[in-house]
Amino acid sequence: MYDCVVIGTGAAGVSAALTLKSLDKNFILLGKASLSVKIGRAEVVKNYPGLPSVTGAGMRDAFLAQLAAEGIEILNGKATGIFKTDGGFTVACESAALECRTVILAGGVEAIKPIAGEREFLGRGVSYCATCDGFLYRGKDIAAVVYSKDEEHEVEFLAKFAARVCLFPLYKGVGEFADNVEIMSGRPLKIEGGDRVERVVTDGGEIAVDGVFMLKDATAGVGLLNGLKTKDGSITVNRGCETNIAGVFAAGDCTGRPYQYAKAVGEGNVAAHSVNAYLARLKRGEK
Amino acid sequence: MYDCVVIGTGAAGVSAALTLKSLDKNFILLGKASLSVKIGRAEVVKNYPGLPSVTGAGMRDAFLAQLAAEGIEILNGKATGIFKTDGGFTVACESAALECRTVILAGGVEAIKPIAGEREFLGRGVSYCATCDGFLYRGKDIAAVVYSKDEEHEVEFLAKFAARVCLFPLYKGVGEFADNVEIMSGRPLKIEGGDRVERVVTDGGEIAVDGVFMLKDATAGVGLLNGLKTKDGSITVNRGCETNIAGVFAAGDCTGRPYQYAKAVGEGNVAAHSVNAYLARLKRGEK
Repeated sequence: MYDCVVIGTGAAGVSAALTLKSLDKNFILLGKASLSVKIGRAEVVKNYPGLPSVTGAGMRDAFLAQLAAEGIEILNGKATGIFKTDGGFTVACESAALECRTVILAGGVEAIKPIAGEREFLGRGVSYCATCDGFLYRGKDIAAVVYSKDEEHEVEFLAKFAARVCLFPLYKGVGEFADNVEIMSGRPLKIEGGDRVERVVTDGGEIAVDGVFMLKDATAGVGLLNGLKTKDGSITVNRGCETNIAGVFAAGDCTGRPYQYAKAVGEGNVAAHSVNAYLARLKRGEK
Repeated sequence: MYDCVVIGTGAAGVSAALTLKSLDKNFILLGKASLSVKIGRAEVVKNYPGLPSVTGAGMRDAFLAQLAAEGIEILNGKATGIFKTDGGFTVACESAALECRTVILAGGVEAIKPIAGEREFLGRGVSYCATCDGFLYRGKDIAAVVYSKDEEHEVEFLAKFAARVCLFPLYKGVGEFADNVEIMSGRPLKIEGGDRVERVVTDGGEIAVDGVFMLKDATAGVGLLNGLKTKDGSITVNRGCETNIAGVFAAGDCTGRPYQYAKAVGEGNVAAHSVNAYLARLKRGEK
């Protein structure tokens, strides 16, 4: 059982990890081993104290070197769901189910807007992870909405279980798949159903399915956890970076503007200290 | 009229200044030209992202170099009071009265606890600045509570005006002064009076005075501004680093724990963005 799982390897996640380390906590930093794509993309940052006129690539290298120097490894992977358990939480990712007492959501802002119904049916037919949930759809019809070529291997995986995979590729240069993968021409607009997903509505009609896999690079915290309070797509936190769910904290772009390295770094630090205080309360038997 | 005066040259003030600069604002950074004493004192900081295992001195040098590279000068001085004006605020320091639309309080935590009555009588006989208020006590009896040898020049200044200066030196190796400076042996415990200061209560008795100068290295924001909402000695701010007074923002240690560089840097950034949004609202004629 980990003290904390930090989800996201942007500036907030890196900062949280460094502070958790300094607080001698037992934690996992889950994200991209090469850090979040967004860090490397910044052209030049002039207002991050300590790294004058740094490029995104320069900042990424500095952060990676510092994590290595502190002995902090990144578990390379994508969080696909967070579930409440008796002792805390389970964070599911492609390679593991991580048991932890607390979670810091530092997944950044989702560049891709969810489609209608995506959030609503999460866990009720909508999934972000083929390798986690694919086996649930053995012999069934599913849709796969795929945002980049990098996710094609997940479609292959799904095709092993499902009777039929209706593939909506939202990128160019689609590869080849097994015979039960059908490439759709329409654009998915909405996921509908009753208790569970029943169909995908496209600009060309409707397709009946039992499940929908939304396969994209990263999923911000918002979609990972049921009941998380948000406003205008940002996770609602107080000054201690606490969310409305005890034991769940959030830091960085996912908590709202300004979308800045300094702000993200500050919140990662604050979230880690709040985790520390929360764990101390748990240990004392307070709730 | 400046867009903003940033008070304090710790991590929060430096971060706020760098971001105000990137937002192309017209501002003054007021504090120690060599940055806050506290920055340089840190032995080694392991959790500030971007500067691995940095010493306080190393961080100070990095910050100073970056300010210089961005063309940001520090106005060397100490804020001694902030006053509401029609167009915004006046920040008083030893060398100037700075007119500004907004203020960012980034003065850190006061290492020295105020004595009883100090806050209460601020502006009603208590002053933090000899060169600002000394002339008000021409021919009168005053007390000077002095925390370090560095402030002795202020005592000399006071002696030029006052009939009698009752000096309470709270350090060793007191120098020599003019004849009207009387070195007291007791420890000041309390400042008392009615509408204005009337006496200092010490562990040895009472001394009647018209004014009390509290002369120390720096004064946190808490004491500078009437009506500022605080809790347990920290300035109360929301997630946007806004205080209860419109146009006044606070960042860093003065807003409370954790007392960490990363947190301070993050809040400096957020405060600068909030200043920017506030100025935009002012310009549009909103309150």
